[in-house]
Amino acid sequence: MTQPGVSGDERSSGLADQLPSWADGQAKTQILEFVRSVTEPGASFVPAQDRIAAFDNDGTLWCEKPMSPQADFLLRRWKEMAQAHPGLARKQPWKAVIEGDQERLAGLLEHVPELTRGVTEAYAGITTGAFERTARRFFDAARHPVLGVAYTRLGYRPMRELIDLLTASQFEVYICSAGGRDFVRAAAEQMYGIPRQRVIGSGATLEYRHGQLYRTRGMEQPVDDGPGKPVHLWARTGRTPLLAGGNADGDAAMLRTARFGLLIRHDDAGREFAYDTGSERALAKAKERGWTVVSMQNDFKMVFDL
Amino acid sequence: MTQPGVSGDERSSGLADQLPSWADGQAKTQILEFVRSVTEPGASFVPAQDRIAAFDNDGTLWCEKPMSPQADFLLRRWKEMAQAHPGLARKQPWKAVIEGDQERLAGLLEHVPELTRGVTEAYAGITTGAFERTARRFFDAARHPVLGVAYTRLGYRPMRELIDLLTASQFEVYICSAGGRDFVRAAAEQMYGIPRQRVIGSGATLEYRHGQLYRTRGMEQPVDDGPGKPVHLWARTGRTPLLAGGNADGDAAMLRTARFGLLIRHDDAGREFAYDTGSERALAKAKERGWTVVSMQNDFKMVFDL
Repeated sequence: MTQPGVSGDERSSGLADQLPSWADGQAKTQILEFVRSVTEPGASFVPAQDRIAAFDNDGTLWCEKPMSPQADFLLRRWKEMAQAHPGLARKQPWKAVIEGDQERLAGLLEHVPELTRGVTEAYAGITTGAFERTARRFFDAARHPVLGVAYTRLGYRPMRELIDLLTASQFEVYICSAGGRDFVRAAAEQMYGIPRQRVIGSGATLEYRHGQLYRTRGMEQPVDDGPGKPVHLWARTGRTPLLAGGNADGDAAMLRTARFGLLIRHDDAGREFAYDTGSERALAKAKERGWTVVSMQNDFKMVFDL
Repeated sequence: MTQPGVSGDERSSGLADQLPSWADGQAKTQILEFVRSVTEPGASFVPAQDRIAAFDNDGTLWCEKPMSPQADFLLRRWKEMAQAHPGLARKQPWKAVIEGDQERLAGLLEHVPELTRGVTEAYAGITTGAFERTARRFFDAARHPVLGVAYTRLGYRPMRELIDLLTASQFEVYICSAGGRDFVRAAAEQMYGIPRQRVIGSGATLEYRHGQLYRTRGMEQPVDDGPGKPVHLWARTGRTPLLAGGNADGDAAMLRTARFGLLIRHDDAGREFAYDTGSERALAKAKERGWTVVSMQNDFKMVFDL
């Protein structure tokens, strides 16, 4: 993998040029040193076919506050259902939508696996093709409630650079999301350059009938969160990831199985949102496990590409 | 995609050179014409990222008679279990193994999904890594009971050429097998040049504990056979295949979702085995669905690369 006449230091600085939105510091240095170590001859070299990287999506690749794009997608669907079937307005969750009961809605939409279950139930019975068209229409039309731009513009620029750097270093890069696999697929190629076959996530159980695939009310088991993440990654790739990135407790198992773990910390109230809720255990484990913690405030020169 | 100064006819004959083990005839012509049509500019052109091909494995890529490699793998395991725990010899299936009850064993080992369930139960509780090592030892040691060579040498040479042709034409080629995904992974790269992340199949439910994945007695649902094949293909790739190949009724749903379907017919008693059992419905549907039927006797110049 070494180019003749190019030293390791020069190659590292060549790699560094590919991460212009990352501030110099420990996180950037550790990432570059790891990529160099597995791609150059030496004790840590890993053949290209074994270079798998996996990233969580919500809060790791795209913004999940004040609510994740999938939560907005589900809210709109609930509203649409309540309008089409007024009887639903007396039942939850539609009642909360109609009444604007923010506290109850926040509880319903906070946890990604439950949210994905909600999407599954709300879209049961349609084909995978119809669901894809619906998700694409959402990504075309919806705007982030605070930042006012399309959700597809709210991927983290530094993470996109990292994905591109890994791809250029012959990693196969996967998304491994607790969110809906087929929902994320509708945006992954455009946002991250990750083709749909490299999107892993939670999903509705599918039924084949007469040449078509229909979504059911059931969820594929396990859900792609917590201990389910390494299970999904193995099912899909037959490997544990060489590098894995996450931001929450639900990513800890995936990070533990990776040679290099990256944990994004949301500590930038000015440019994004500051919160550790749901990440407390992962952050506490980071030192013991040797994970590289990325401070969005300090390690990202730029957050969004707006 | 066209090379300047190279006509369509010349490109087709260039592609044809990559299938030296295929006899000239309708099957070869239809395959080449299809590959040309989706890779050259024109009404049928398909961008490289959408070129997914999927092949069944047992009887499509490797020999499955008189029993599939996985059946031999399971038989050896049952024998080992009965020797380690003599009490088992009074119960089925171990009793049949000890007594050499061929008729009962044939019934137990004939249907790939049941066979895969047998492997799942017989290897419950071990890690994915330990299972992989066991499968590799089997492929190193076992010999086909009639042909006397390693199973890894009994892939069909013409199908390997087709896989290579598709790969060279920027298809991403997947195996979609009712057999055990992790069993097939142990041989797929060596036999077909297909990396483990492109092997789809039936599998044990996995459990994550303390950084390791353990096989359980349960099976992931659905099993990757019949209507389960398009479901698995969608889960793994988010697409329906552009080209799909199979040989049995359990492949019909997958073939139906593909733009181009290939159905291998086992009609060569001299060089392989002649049987239509388990393929009757698929063969009957072939004409109506426009599938290309491949006669092993007439369309394969060479079956194995021995």
